Amino acid sequence: MDKQDQFSLSERRLRLLGPGMRQFYDFPFHPVSGQGVWLVDGEGKRYLDAYNNVPHVGHCNGVVVEALSRQAAALNTNTRYLHETILDYAERLLATMPPGLDTCMFVCTGTEANDLAWRLARAYTGNDGAIATRHAYHGNSTFVSALDCSTRTPERPNHWLATVPAPPDGTSPGQDADAYAGNFDAAIAALATHGHRPAAFYMDSLFATDGLDLPASGYLDEALRRLRAVGGLCVADEVQPGLGRTGTAMWGFQNFGIVPDIVTTGKPMGNGHPLAVLVTRREIVDAFFAGDRYFNTFGGNPVSAAVGLAVLDVLEHEKLSDNARVVGSYLKDGLGKLAADSGAIGAVKGAGLFLGVAIVDPVSGQPDAGRARRIINEMCRRGVLIGLTGPASNLLKIRPPMVFARSDADFLIDTLDAVLKAG
Amino acid sequence: MDKQDQFSLSERRLRLLGPGMRQFYDFPFHPVSGQGVWLVDGEGKRYLDAYNNVPHVGHCNGVVVEALSRQAAALNTNTRYLHETILDYAERLLATMPPGLDTCMFVCTGTEANDLAWRLARAYTGNDGAIATRHAYHGNSTFVSALDCSTRTPERPNHWLATVPAPPDGTSPGQDADAYAGNFDAAIAALATHGHRPAAFYMDSLFATDGLDLPASGYLDEALRRLRAVGGLCVADEVQPGLGRTGTAMWGFQNFGIVPDIVTTGKPMGNGHPLAVLVTRREIVDAFFAGDRYFNTFGGNPVSAAVGLAVLDVLEHEKLSDNARVVGSYLKDGLGKLAADSGAIGAVKGAGLFLGVAIVDPVSGQPDAGRARRIINEMCRRGVLIGLTGPASNLLKIRPPMVFARSDADFLIDTLDAVLKAG
Repeated sequence: MDKQDQFSLSERRLRLLGPGMRQFYDFPFHPVSGQGVWLVDGEGKRYLDAYNNVPHVGHCNGVVVEALSRQAAALNTNTRYLHETILDYAERLLATMPPGLDTCMFVCTGTEANDLAWRLARAYTGNDGAIATRHAYHGNSTFVSALDCSTRTPERPNHWLATVPAPPDGTSPGQDADAYAGNFDAAIAALATHGHRPAAFYMDSLFATDGLDLPASGYLDEALRRLRAVGGLCVADEVQPGLGRTGTAMWGFQNFGIVPDIVTTGKPMGNGHPLAVLVTRREIVDAFFAGDRYFNTFGGNPVSAAVGLAVLDVLEHEKLSDNARVVGSYLKDGLGKLAADSGAIGAVKGAGLFLGVAIVDPVSGQPDAGRARRIINEMCRRGVLIGLTGPASNLLKIRPPMVFARSDADFLIDTLDAVLKAG
Repeated sequence: MDKQDQFSLSERRLRLLGPGMRQFYDFPFHPVSGQGVWLVDGEGKRYLDAYNNVPHVGHCNGVVVEALSRQAAALNTNTRYLHETILDYAERLLATMPPGLDTCMFVCTGTEANDLAWRLARAYTGNDGAIATRHAYHGNSTFVSALDCSTRTPERPNHWLATVPAPPDGTSPGQDADAYAGNFDAAIAALATHGHRPAAFYMDSLFATDGLDLPASGYLDEALRRLRAVGGLCVADEVQPGLGRTGTAMWGFQNFGIVPDIVTTGKPMGNGHPLAVLVTRREIVDAFFAGDRYFNTFGGNPVSAAVGLAVLDVLEHEKLSDNARVVGSYLKDGLGKLAADSGAIGAVKGAGLFLGVAIVDPVSGQPDAGRARRIINEMCRRGVLIGLTGPASNLLKIRPPMVFARSDADFLIDTLDAVLKAG
């Protein structure tokens, strides 16, 4: 497809979907097929996908596509009928969880899981306040989007929400867990000023949008003790870190040794098929159903459950969490070497196959979002897809499918090296 | 699968998913395959599916499964990249809408569509109140579930919500559109008492949970005029009536001659694949994006869009809306004849292939939910799947896949006749 055709598609897109539906890069990117870590455009040009976490076990993974196709041809119906696949899937998921997290509620998206977590937390705790990290993003429903405090306006002060900073990197000097927990005291006090007590603290277990600093094991214990002392629950949002992405645990919260009350996760579960789940303790589910009702027609339907099981199968058979640890570590080392050579890299952060490269102004050392944006555009032109994240939008977001190989890491590093040197 | 195995599955289900995840019938129903209007259990027994609207063009429709399988094997990625399928699908959908409804926002579930409608309506109108019908059900998010006023509690009075009765049947005597519009004046006044003005009126264009009474053309015009005079938008929820189910229009709202400001629809779009859409005017979308942001990673992804297109193809090629009109009318007539013979049927309601049979106590003529529940269980034992709806839970809900044939209608009528005569 030539440039003119892409321009026409962009025009149609603007006309049909509106200008709010922005494109990813500053120019059209139009893939037509995918396999593993590769996307291919209409001219046959290959792009290394180092951005998309949704195709968790690789684009168009054969095992997953086969499970999807076979079950879709056999039966797809609602989950008030009896079906064994949803039960097999629930058993497999629960086996990866700490004891006590014993009940699954299947939904279709991470947003739905986080929104449902709120309904459960309110019912169980009787409280109606929320705590989130300062730069949280947990989804797009009316309630969940309000957890992102950047959406606050004078008309919507959202006094039911208090924020805490994300915990500092576990290796940061001059910080300790007790000092950090003081942020929770302040948040609880701020809520109390407006008559609220926390029902839930929402936490992305990778703190990705907060800047990808990972707390050390045990670091959050005291903070959660203070939260729970006033009745609040901890909701671990595992859409980003879950399913082994950090390389050191199946779920991100396991890296810092806490046990959340509710775990939510989303679309990587289905490798692109809209499938998500909430896992919690039975007493919390029971408290909810004592006074309310919930039914998600298609959460955990036979097709979704078959897809979810296939993803778990591939993850285990191909030892992809180990791969994330080994290749992620190799990639992080390589990026660290670039940082030593380039004044434009302030730090390399993250774990496993979710890394962030902080782009800074070489002179001032300050976050440089404009430079970061130019870099991701140029990386795409040279055949490597990455994105941006972080409070200052200056972190290169490297979050590839879990089948990312050492040679893929080499290509990414070499390309980034060339881009930095060119510009 | 024998009874013992089904019992074991039910036990596992209770253990893994909790008691809140109720089963549909009073006994386990365990289908293992589906085709067209038929579901088959493990012992090879066939059940006529006269309940499930999600497999809109039939269980495991070959055209849809093929489109799903082919696209899932080729590419499935996020919608910030350029892809033509989402545009083809948006064009096809918009071509079915009244002029002015010119912009699509794709999401994964009807809940997400209705929740997003609220965010748009608030942004565009600047208002923060809602109006819904008395027995509304529009989905399961924190916001959308609150539109169901049966979830109100003293702790959550939801003063931002006012309710109106569903409009009476268009043929009901002693009612007129102007008198009905008075309910909107009262709702608007009730909101004003608490400092709210309506941002949106949510309406299931079949009023299914309100009892399946359908207003005549023009009936709602005056009500909507009063809503719009105070800035409110009309949201038509087309999850139930949409895609030709009423047999007389592609979308339910077209049956009574109104043009909503926002149209939402859900899972029948994808024949079971989680796919949903919101359609509205560009100015409303622009007002939202002027102060907020929204991105649904997988709404309208290449696989979902391919599935949605295939459903539209089958709907058109097989003239399924015509089928809904012809077979629905035949079925309604047949049910009407049963009503003449049985004191347990109070009325037959609905349109096209969404019919409701009001079950009443033969002596008192009052709604009889217990009898209705016994009937749907006995229908299932005899191989016909139907459900329940309506404010009094006494309406047999007959809402089959759109490929329902005259012979299927005969089987349903004969079976219901036998069940009524037996007891």
